[in-house]
Amino acid sequence: MKTKPPASEARFAYEGLDRVIHERARLSVLTSLVTHPKGLAFNHLKQLCGLTDGNLSRHLSVLEKDKIVEIIKMQDHNRPLTLCRITTSGRARYVEYLSTLEQVVRDAAHAASVKSSSNPARSPSASRA
Amino acid sequence: MKTKPPASEARFAYEGLDRVIHERARLSVLTSLVTHPKGLAFNHLKQLCGLTDGNLSRHLSVLEKDKIVEIIKMQDHNRPLTLCRITTSGRARYVEYLSTLEQVVRDAAHAASVKSSSNPARSPSASRA
Repeated sequence: MKTKPPASEARFAYEGLDRVIHERARLSVLTSLVTHPKGLAFNHLKQLCGLTDGNLSRHLSVLEKDKIVEIIKMQDHNRPLTLCRITTSGRARYVEYLSTLEQVVRDAAHAASVKSSSNPARSPSASRA
Repeated sequence: MKTKPPASEARFAYEGLDRVIHERARLSVLTSLVTHPKGLAFNHLKQLCGLTDGNLSRHLSVLEKDKIVEIIKMQDHNRPLTLCRITTSGRARYVEYLSTLEQVVRDAAHAASVKSSSNPARSPSASRA
């Protein structure tokens, strides 16, 4: 069978893992912004995410195009300041994404704990020792 | 400042989100395999992940190259059967990844709940109504 199976059978497909949000740097940016709902200055955001200027700019463009974030250019004591903020619809989309991410963690964490307790000698931490 | 800030300041960098595992289809494959430690037949895995033959093969190759999964070609009543299984080191790497994923969920869920309770009129579910 070469065709894609119906989604109903695809227990682990995680269709809710929105690719725009799931990319690591963008997930980092959005988690920073969702925890700072009043917004963050570009330089502070860059620092929190461990990104370079170029990388952050590129990912913010992707997110701005999808109206997930808004970029506000302003002045602070005559110095230019770029404020980055998650939008209301971006926040809703992030929360949707988060519910699927929580499902992954539940699925995986359950399996990891079952395996560890049933066979402690082959648990991941033991195998690395 | 054009340089990358030190990791210690990068509170939301999530360096542990291993790119090999984080890609959506591979996360789907590995979560299926971690919940089925004895392995899964290729066709069953394909169904659980909602992937096509070609897509699954491609992602399995990436995971096999990094020794995260092993692919065992066997016979079942004279019919060829391909068994896919997560390796011990792959499992350890997945568990490491999972601990960072849990951190993302904790960071985000906390922010989401704080925002919702402090300002219910602008909560994500309300904004979609």
